[in-house]
Amino acid sequence: MSEFKLDQRLKDDCFILDESENFILLLLNNALVPWFILVPKTDKTELYELDESLQQQIMSLINQISTYIKQEYPVDKLNIATIGNIVAQLHIHIIGRFKTDPYWPGVVWGREPKQPYAQKNINIIQKQLKAILEI
Amino acid sequence: MSEFKLDQRLKDDCFILDESENFILLLLNNALVPWFILVPKTDKTELYELDESLQQQIMSLINQISTYIKQEYPVDKLNIATIGNIVAQLHIHIIGRFKTDPYWPGVVWGREPKQPYAQKNINIIQKQLKAILEI
Repeated sequence: MSEFKLDQRLKDDCFILDESENFILLLLNNALVPWFILVPKTDKTELYELDESLQQQIMSLINQISTYIKQEYPVDKLNIATIGNIVAQLHIHIIGRFKTDPYWPGVVWGREPKQPYAQKNINIIQKQLKAILEI
Repeated sequence: MSEFKLDQRLKDDCFILDESENFILLLLNNALVPWFILVPKTDKTELYELDESLQQQIMSLINQISTYIKQEYPVDKLNIATIGNIVAQLHIHIIGRFKTDPYWPGVVWGREPKQPYAQKNINIIQKQLKAILEI
């Protein structure tokens, strides 16, 4: 899909960590929780519409990103979701949650506050993920 | 896992639609949106901890339940998530959303109002799902 164009709101809210033929991996600009967004390059908007091979790749990447989060952060729970009520472009949230984060035990969507990342921390996360991820 | 015990809060909030060796399928008692909850019979609390075969069964059931929702309801979007901040027992939400539902475009979790089902409608949903689902 050479014509794939990342949704403008995802572009505005996130940093691009990595990109491959089939995926873009984003980091939401909120240092309060480790919040990754996986965007399959598809014009389908629902998970069940994807072919089995792409679904399996998504599951594998969820596993890899989950493992990374659990290794690098003392998180209490992972929240994984595809919602898309506001940004219809298919995207999967993979988020580490702390019992001490400002949204706990509620969900993170539509909640405040957010805290922007320092650039050096984005660089560290990007380097770590690029080293382990098969995207 | 013969000793598997459904979390009491899930029991209180939902109807059991179907049960198999590996899964329990629940209907949340809120007729405002079609809201299904799939509970794999495991003591793991995170998706990435499950073995590949169980992950594939979950993906297949997400596909089947998504297809059912899209066929039976004029939904605008599907929301699929595993959160577990309050109920740690692993469970996956598969929810049909309408642009006219009271929570749109927000997420459904922690939101009001809810509207209990009439028993006859639960029976209809249960019959339809049992006919098509390979749980």
